[in-house]
Amino acid sequence: MVEKKILSELYETIGKEKVEINKNFLVTYSYDSTGQKHLPDIIVFPHNEEDVKEILKIASKYMIPVTPRGAGVGYSGGAVPVKGGISLVFTKMNRIINIDKKNMLAVVEPGVITQNLHVECERAGLFYPPDPASLKTSTLGGNVSENAGGPRCFKYGVTSNYVLALEGYLISGEKVKFGTSTIKDVSGYDIKHLITGSEGTLIVITRIFLRLIPKPDKDILVKLNFNSLWSGSDFINKVIGANLSPSVLEFIDRTSIEAVYDYINIPLNKKLNSVVLIEFDGSVSEIEKRISKLRTMINNSDILSYEIAESSEEKEKLWSIRRNISPAIANIKPKKINEDIAVPIGEIPDTVRYISKLSEETGIKIIMFGHFGDGNIHTNLMIDPENREEVKKCEYLLDKIFKHVISVNGTISGEHGIGISKKAFLKYQYGETEIELFKRIKKVFDPHGLLNPGKIF
Amino acid sequence: MVEKKILSELYETIGKEKVEINKNFLVTYSYDSTGQKHLPDIIVFPHNEEDVKEILKIASKYMIPVTPRGAGVGYSGGAVPVKGGISLVFTKMNRIINIDKKNMLAVVEPGVITQNLHVECERAGLFYPPDPASLKTSTLGGNVSENAGGPRCFKYGVTSNYVLALEGYLISGEKVKFGTSTIKDVSGYDIKHLITGSEGTLIVITRIFLRLIPKPDKDILVKLNFNSLWSGSDFINKVIGANLSPSVLEFIDRTSIEAVYDYINIPLNKKLNSVVLIEFDGSVSEIEKRISKLRTMINNSDILSYEIAESSEEKEKLWSIRRNISPAIANIKPKKINEDIAVPIGEIPDTVRYISKLSEETGIKIIMFGHFGDGNIHTNLMIDPENREEVKKCEYLLDKIFKHVISVNGTISGEHGIGISKKAFLKYQYGETEIELFKRIKKVFDPHGLLNPGKIF
Repeated sequence: MVEKKILSELYETIGKEKVEINKNFLVTYSYDSTGQKHLPDIIVFPHNEEDVKEILKIASKYMIPVTPRGAGVGYSGGAVPVKGGISLVFTKMNRIINIDKKNMLAVVEPGVITQNLHVECERAGLFYPPDPASLKTSTLGGNVSENAGGPRCFKYGVTSNYVLALEGYLISGEKVKFGTSTIKDVSGYDIKHLITGSEGTLIVITRIFLRLIPKPDKDILVKLNFNSLWSGSDFINKVIGANLSPSVLEFIDRTSIEAVYDYINIPLNKKLNSVVLIEFDGSVSEIEKRISKLRTMINNSDILSYEIAESSEEKEKLWSIRRNISPAIANIKPKKINEDIAVPIGEIPDTVRYISKLSEETGIKIIMFGHFGDGNIHTNLMIDPENREEVKKCEYLLDKIFKHVISVNGTISGEHGIGISKKAFLKYQYGETEIELFKRIKKVFDPHGLLNPGKIF
Repeated sequence: MVEKKILSELYETIGKEKVEINKNFLVTYSYDSTGQKHLPDIIVFPHNEEDVKEILKIASKYMIPVTPRGAGVGYSGGAVPVKGGISLVFTKMNRIINIDKKNMLAVVEPGVITQNLHVECERAGLFYPPDPASLKTSTLGGNVSENAGGPRCFKYGVTSNYVLALEGYLISGEKVKFGTSTIKDVSGYDIKHLITGSEGTLIVITRIFLRLIPKPDKDILVKLNFNSLWSGSDFINKVIGANLSPSVLEFIDRTSIEAVYDYINIPLNKKLNSVVLIEFDGSVSEIEKRISKLRTMINNSDILSYEIAESSEEKEKLWSIRRNISPAIANIKPKKINEDIAVPIGEIPDTVRYISKLSEETGIKIIMFGHFGDGNIHTNLMIDPENREEVKKCEYLLDKIFKHVISVNGTISGEHGIGISKKAFLKYQYGETEIELFKRIKKVFDPHGLLNPGKIF
């Protein structure tokens, strides 16, 4: 419940039309892709940075928690207002302020949908590589806050590699800017990278400066079909070793294939047990060279078949297989525990084998797919949350999987973030000293713990 | 002066042979490439991380400042012990612990000389791109602490793009590790990037985990000679626009050429007024394609002449021109005020023109060279520090130059760091709120301000 005084102060400063306390709205903005629900008390839709400043000043004054939110499609609960308070929704701050061709950068508001930036960049002959599977719905503010990855990160790096500067507000309402519009900058501490991936817990971002690169002349997508899990995952390691510099190197296992073929209505070859997606980009001649090398590799392996997509339509068809895996597999079991572990690239085959063995041992279906090229394995444990035995087995499995990942110097989260869903597991990766330091850094920015409270640690 | 008690505690814990208080040693470790001198009270040479831990515990107990030091060749005073105390010299912790081919990473101690890692990586068919001009002397600990750049950063990014994880000690003696051995990692705050470039003020690094990439098949270096400053700097922008993806794009002005040709004894063509160095790497056929495009560009421009270096000896000869500029120009005037501003790439030509005009206006010689491809302009103001008028003009010039740089969203330091030499200018780039945040972050790691005190802010 919101005190009338606070509400009327909000109405006065930013305008009544930007504030919602209607129950239906509160429910809509209470969850994200984790499915966890916590009702906010107020939803506000800032239209500009002045609005953000005023909202934060009021929140600070009355000690109200503030949870920034983009599209709410995150996988770790980053946008879920676990302590209630204000849900600060950025959908109205969605302007691409500038695509600066001369200096090869973009200036955007946090509510811009990632795909819209892709389209605008392409029009200018430029390229913004990060491409999370959610790119048609997720926002750049969310991408920056979670340091989103995506298939192309294999070649081009993650969101943080493109963040030149961040402008925003401390919870106190003070404006800050970290970084510049230059590729190199070592002036002061590197706070822009600290904020990137901080899951909205340090500052409220109002403007993002992103590096753009020249658009490759061409890209083509190859789909390789294998008759076993191993032949697919081993082929990926061969491609890495062959130095073909693909821009994308994705893996899809049998269960994902079944689910997604059913979901988007494609007939299924019974022998198909894993799929590898490879994208090459660059000049036409470079791509031809790589494809011809790949053909030699294909001829020397036990591959079922392959397709090469060159037109936009063909490519989009193949991409839709990859991007629909997450929603498709959600139908297999009542609950999917969605982990996004990452391991050093040489450890992928052994990790896949280890997890498969665990799945056989416990009888819990585990679906693996994702960015194998950079060691990022989306690992989905499919369970019925009403089934106590399955829940218990799931706990056992997560413990085993995370311990394995840490033992090979991997991470419990490659791109989704810790949020609320992986909070209990942070101690697998970090000791007390490090976690204490995280908490003290949080306090530097937000002494009263009002900004996106209850997340990470 | 050091209390006997402290000295004997050091002798007891790490061994007498690792401690020096001899005056000659103190002088040797009192300065870096800035020329600023501050005597330490003690020099210690840790041999392993246990030594580091013991030294820091003693420093904390007796509240002694600690200044970590690699080769002491930095350009901003990072390794200068301005508050005395312990100079913590890492030259004995210089082991390459592992070149991990399978996982494409290197694990090193901070005292490893950058070039030694380059050599070892090449032997393994791998590549560590960052190549600061000082690579034959500077250490990886120093490179990480200053977030060193170098010519190849144009294509490959700076040191921080290769830092996977950092292990080390807080000033309290507590061990910490941030990051993993994976390319992607969003677990907890991104502290490894906060530490990278923090100039040794946050933790003492004892182990560095660096990402390696496949070694390009081949690289060749092209030296282009121009008869004017503008034709050279404009050619750089044309190359960027032509999407030739060079790995290096360097500029050298007339005064640098004169100085360095004299320094390394090469006869000088009087018409030569600027030099552009371009490196291409990749497959043989890719390089050929780019060279042929470059030849077309050369034929359409007013270039004096050009040379293509393919053999190691030829390339080394050209590189030595670039790498010897800094020592060579130091002889021109009693003092060189060495700035390393960076501007967005589209702003390079105007910035060069602006600075040249300032030089003409004041009569102060300003030498410009460096990584124009990524907007990083090494700007050297040549003055006699005994000449009061020149010193005053220099202050005027720096004020003008930094204001210009900030007005185009550039940075006052692209790769050298702030240290002591640019401390007074940090406020050009950051406001009070941001600088206050830097200070509070420093306190989180080092509450009593013992670690490399007196730097950055």
